[in-house]
Amino acid sequence: MEPTKIDFEKGGGLVPVITQDVDTGEVLMLAYMNEESFRETLRTKRAVYWSRRRGLWRKGEESGNHQDVHGIFIDCDADTILLKVHQHGGAACHTGRRTCFYRDSEDGEGWRTLMEPIFDPEKVYGAKK
Amino acid sequence: MEPTKIDFEKGGGLVPVITQDVDTGEVLMLAYMNEESFRETLRTKRAVYWSRRRGLWRKGEESGNHQDVHGIFIDCDADTILLKVHQHGGAACHTGRRTCFYRDSEDGEGWRTLMEPIFDPEKVYGAKK
Repeated sequence: MEPTKIDFEKGGGLVPVITQDVDTGEVLMLAYMNEESFRETLRTKRAVYWSRRRGLWRKGEESGNHQDVHGIFIDCDADTILLKVHQHGGAACHTGRRTCFYRDSEDGEGWRTLMEPIFDPEKVYGAKK
Repeated sequence: MEPTKIDFEKGGGLVPVITQDVDTGEVLMLAYMNEESFRETLRTKRAVYWSRRRGLWRKGEESGNHQDVHGIFIDCDADTILLKVHQHGGAACHTGRRTCFYRDSEDGEGWRTLMEPIFDPEKVYGAKK
């Protein structure tokens, strides 16, 4: 029988969260949650992460690009969360791109940029970036 | 300009790797790589992870369910890898299921199993499990 309680202890209070676009299947980002942000995600039905820099991080609070939660999954070890979301504004990445995974590589050293920004981070985040 | 070199230092030598089915878009699992396993993944064109328990972990070596790599992506911070793979045998999870994310929840406490195993772990892994 696989564990049924999310294991926040293993990662020192944090679990990795994979965020996937519920419509396209595209993987948008990887972030972390602690118990508080997981509870806030459940309560608000929007993705709320935990950032060592920001603390409780209500995704899209500044940019408007919040994520409505359509599904919450755990893996067999109950130490990773998969979130299926609707991405408002069409861009998950702070660079203004649809996904944070906008670069690929053949050799693991040279990285090719595959997409352009949808929004201009300077305009959205202003001088705070 | 976003970083172009994978940051193995941040996670004490390990980076999280999201593995996605290149055909269906389904997220299969989350695992970790160190530099050695990343190099082995590039060299063999099959997913090779790093496990604290197993060390260098050539996925599918025991079960036959190896993963052919079709794409390697990094995120904006260059501290997470996304791998697009063809999953041999149709199951990525050690429970015999297609994906490790085979359970979902409405309330974050009760988890519902969404799919049945494709293979019998007892037969594949035998007494070693």
